[in-house]
Amino acid sequence: MNNNPSPSAERVVHVPLGDRSYDILIGSGLVARAGAEIATRLKGRKAAVITDANVGALYLDVLMRSLADAGFQAVSLTLPAGEKTKSFEHLMTACDALLDARIERNDAVIALGGGVIGDLTGFAAGIVRRGLRFVQLPTSLLAQVDSSVGGKTGINTRHGKNLVGVFYQPDLVLADTDVLNTLSEREFRAGYAEVAKYGLIDKPDFFSWLETNWRDVFSGGAARTEAIAVSCQAKSDVVAADERENGQRALLNLGHTFGHALEAATNYDSARLVHGEAVSIGMVLAHQFSARLNLASPDDGMRVATHLKTVGLPVSMNEIPGDLPPAEVLMDAIAQDKKVKSGKLTFILTRGIGQSFVADDVPASEVLSFLREKHPR
Amino acid sequence: MNNNPSPSAERVVHVPLGDRSYDILIGSGLVARAGAEIATRLKGRKAAVITDANVGALYLDVLMRSLADAGFQAVSLTLPAGEKTKSFEHLMTACDALLDARIERNDAVIALGGGVIGDLTGFAAGIVRRGLRFVQLPTSLLAQVDSSVGGKTGINTRHGKNLVGVFYQPDLVLADTDVLNTLSEREFRAGYAEVAKYGLIDKPDFFSWLETNWRDVFSGGAARTEAIAVSCQAKSDVVAADERENGQRALLNLGHTFGHALEAATNYDSARLVHGEAVSIGMVLAHQFSARLNLASPDDGMRVATHLKTVGLPVSMNEIPGDLPPAEVLMDAIAQDKKVKSGKLTFILTRGIGQSFVADDVPASEVLSFLREKHPR
Ligand SMILES: NC(=O)c1ccc[n+]([C@@H]2O[C@H](COP(=O)([O-])OP(=O)(O)OC[C@H]3O[C@@H](n4cnc5c(N)ncnc54)[C@H](O)[C@@H]3O)[C@@H](O)[C@H]2O)c1
Ligand SMILES: NC(=O)c1ccc[n+]([C@@H]2O[C@H](COP(=O)([O-])OP(=O)(O)OC[C@H]3O[C@@H](n4cnc5c(N)ncnc54)[C@H](O)[C@@H]3O)[C@@H](O)[C@H]2O)c1
Ligand SMILES: [Zn+2]
Ligand SMILES: [Zn+2]
Repeated sequence: MNNNPSPSAERVVHVPLGDRSYDILIGSGLVARAGAEIATRLKGRKAAVITDANVGALYLDVLMRSLADAGFQAVSLTLPAGEKTKSFEHLMTACDALLDARIERNDAVIALGGGVIGDLTGFAAGIVRRGLRFVQLPTSLLAQVDSSVGGKTGINTRHGKNLVGVFYQPDLVLADTDVLNTLSEREFRAGYAEVAKYGLIDKPDFFSWLETNWRDVFSGGAARTEAIAVSCQAKSDVVAADERENGQRALLNLGHTFGHALEAATNYDSARLVHGEAVSIGMVLAHQFSARLNLASPDDGMRVATHLKTVGLPVSMNEIPGDLPPAEVLMDAIAQDKKVKSGKLTFILTRGIGQSFVADDVPASEVLSFLREKHPR
Repeated sequence: MNNNPSPSAERVVHVPLGDRSYDILIGSGLVARAGAEIATRLKGRKAAVITDANVGALYLDVLMRSLADAGFQAVSLTLPAGEKTKSFEHLMTACDALLDARIERNDAVIALGGGVIGDLTGFAAGIVRRGLRFVQLPTSLLAQVDSSVGGKTGINTRHGKNLVGVFYQPDLVLADTDVLNTLSEREFRAGYAEVAKYGLIDKPDFFSWLETNWRDVFSGGAARTEAIAVSCQAKSDVVAADERENGQRALLNLGHTFGHALEAATNYDSARLVHGEAVSIGMVLAHQFSARLNLASPDDGMRVATHLKTVGLPVSMNEIPGDLPPAEVLMDAIAQDKKVKSGKLTFILTRGIGQSFVADDVPASEVLSFLREKHPR
């Protein structure tokens, strides 16, 4: 991270998963070059692109031209933008579109969009003909550093988020750093919370580097590419060690236990709180809670809060607009998410910046008194 | 096969697939013992049974009692019987039922029924929470010897059969040989065509044994258990060598290329032709076609036809009630199923009883003239 590459340099992160291994290319202009990159890697000559209305309006033409230039016979499907698109109904629409287009086993299914489009499209690619070739073109920062890596796909049901899906690895991920320029400031910051998370899990040097270079990450260029590459590498390392999420992959949930409770408490109303904002507050809470348990120094929590606040992310429950339910209700949400066994639950705690660990014996009573203390009233 | 076990003896076929390995238990009274067998193998204490109206009326009570006795908190969902149940709509219903029942990762999803229920339930078990424990209680002969082994699951769409699904292995298969007594004679015979298929692929001794013992297979007891066990072992061997169907698994399609064309030609109207009947005719055609190509002796085709006719299966296109489309239309259906590459297609041919092989250079023109010759006009 000290010897930064030239601004135009492209980065490649290899995700080693045996015969499901694949590359993540990170750099400038990749949407326009997608056809060529895909053509060298897949045998088929048909492609189906699935996107959402926002992203489609901006980048679908460029992508379709690139596919045509590379010799693909390509079709596209544009779905509404937003979390509601991750539904059984739109899954059916997507599967039907792939079958209508007669996409076969070696042809490409391409997701052009954020995590919503990636999760839905990956699921459809995983089940149509029991598995088609799948390429991700993640267009949000969150999708580039998190959802496009790791092979989790899925939809929501009335019972909750991501409850139906498959593990299905892409054949290629093309993370075009330029497209992030049209992402709203708020969505960019939300994705940045996940970037910072990788530093806080086990990369203290990366977190320091972010403290210094975050402005360049926001403005684009080599620092952005670098931050995305380090993040993809970090997630890839965890996924390669634990593809199906049985153990260490839990570390990726740093900040997410508190975060999910806050998302539930605000009814997933993105006007009040988006996922990355909830994670930002959750990571600060995780550090403060670890300090309360005498595991980490309170200074580390301060340092985390300071950096996240500097980039414009919320860092405490007070900043969430509107009323929050009482601490007991937040605790119920946590208990439901995590399963309490004889009063204990599993939690990601930390011994300091970049020293997170999985604790499976955290007393629920401690969590509750901590929440009471922090709760804004 | 010469030293038959005692009538009550249970057989176990182990399917070796690394960490997805599982056992198939074959024998008498397994529905009533299902709770106990599942309890020793799975950690969870919740279970959800999915069945169809025919099978549910006969066996659901016994199964639910057995689960309760083994300490399971069990719920059930009864769907309509028939191929139409393999739809997106019923898949949603099944997923919702599993989520309503709060079935978790280590709990059991149980399919009680024929191939329709097995395929649909396996798909739901494979995608809810990205994979739940799955137990098959196949109740048709076809399901016991074919669809419950190998991990293919799926549903149909308006584009065709089994076009959406996943590979998902069960944790346990319990094939209760007694329940076959309530299966209609016609459905039993249809399943028997697949039993005979295993002999014709690469087990000439098994085919001879069937010629001698088929009456006992139909009437029940040790010979039935033996025939099912040999069939499961045969399919398991192929699946273990080629889990995701890239090569040798194609041998399982002996008789199916012609068979599928006949099913399409009769609009999948089960009053005219059920799958096993189509396979029966298809296997005879495959032997006759191999003889025409001078690969096998015409006597082998005669012997196959004689045996299948003896058990009551149709063995020629003439026996299908109603008109068939012309040979050219059948040929189109084959070409669509198989993909013709420069006038050649892949076909399962044979050098004689138990000597099948995958040929990938069969001239489409030869198939067409053969069909013209055999076509009833
Ligand atoms: N599969 C996983 O491992 C995983 C991990 C984390 C999150 N997720 C899922 O990801 C989803 C959230 O992803 P997201 O934050 O990308 O949401 P999103 O896909 O809804 O994108 C956010 C918004 O930004 C817009 N957008 C995306 N790229 C743009 C661009 N380049 N320019 C302009 N607008 C753009 C979208 O149209 C949308 O309105 C959730 O459903 C979550 O469950 C999945
Ligand atoms: N997954 C695979 O590898 C695979 C392989 C072959 C076939 N299949 C699928 O299997 C399906 C056909 O299976 P099937 O022939 O079992 O059809 P099915 O499930 O429809 O069962 C046939 C009929 O028999 C009834 N029945 C089943 N068991 C009974 C019993 N013990 N007593 C009385 N009635 C009983 C059913 O209610 C139904 O009416 C097709 O959808 C086919 O695509 C899948
Ligand atoms: Zn997250
Ligand atoms: Zn068959």
